[in-house]
Amino acid sequence: MLKKDYTGQDCSIARSLEVVGERWTLLIIRELMNGKCRFSEIERGLGIAKNILSNRLESLDALGVVKKVVISPGGEWVEYRLTAKGRDLFPVINALMAWGDKYVAPDGPPVTLLHRCGGKAGHRMVCACCGEDLHMRDVYTAEGVEKPAPRSKS
Amino acid sequence: MLKKDYTGQDCSIARSLEVVGERWTLLIIRELMNGKCRFSEIERGLGIAKNILSNRLESLDALGVVKKVVISPGGEWVEYRLTAKGRDLFPVINALMAWGDKYVAPDGPPVTLLHRCGGKAGHRMVCACCGEDLHMRDVYTAEGVEKPAPRSKS
Repeated sequence: MLKKDYTGQDCSIARSLEVVGERWTLLIIRELMNGKCRFSEIERGLGIAKNILSNRLESLDALGVVKKVVISPGGEWVEYRLTAKGRDLFPVINALMAWGDKYVAPDGPPVTLLHRCGGKAGHRMVCACCGEDLHMRDVYTAEGVEKPAPRSKS
Repeated sequence: MLKKDYTGQDCSIARSLEVVGERWTLLIIRELMNGKCRFSEIERGLGIAKNILSNRLESLDALGVVKKVVISPGGEWVEYRLTAKGRDLFPVINALMAWGDKYVAPDGPPVTLLHRCGGKAGHRMVCACCGEDLHMRDVYTAEGVEKPAPRSKS
């Protein structure tokens, strides 16, 4: 079996991929974002083997991305819900969808994301500082800028 | 070996993952975005097995994400460069980095992305229509909105 960690990579991209980079994981998160919360719904939606789905959901639960919630008194029915940590993966899903719509959807986007304003939400990324559209050519990396002041744990 | 396609998933997220979802692929793209273009540089940067790196680069080249460029007259030196299709993966990389910085970087972000304005670029996504900050709770999906008008091939 392939390892899922990237030993030696002190990198937030690698660390994120250790959580969501396994096969099927991001599609399971997509299903949950679309409101499919039951094991059987996700299984049907993805056509995924039960043992793999079970393994992924357990792992996401352990990592705090998903919360398993018992919804019947006897415990027979459970639902899986995204936590805030899981919902914060929306930009990753949206970015993959936008790229896929542009490059690997020859018949046009299968699904369109609409914003509450009524328009197409699309994927537009802007600089968090000046608000200008963010392009790769306009950014550069500064390693460890924030290291001298580690974030408080509180 | 694990399959890399998601049969039956008519979904741009799944299609994107068929291109970039394999282990190591997005980290190779990160290296290329950081200006590391030589096989040996990427190999060193990632500590990845030669055969896997070679396989991934070949596949990305075949899919038009990366272009292999011969830079010496005799063909001994080659570089790998991102195409426009590859550079357009920047939002995916940025979104994974932002999520990782927030959730899986206990000592603070290892790398900070600065914008040409001098500020921290961060990851801010806005509605492509109204410009408001884009949150998951404010979007909904409309299946096949664009299907009646497939994009022209020109």
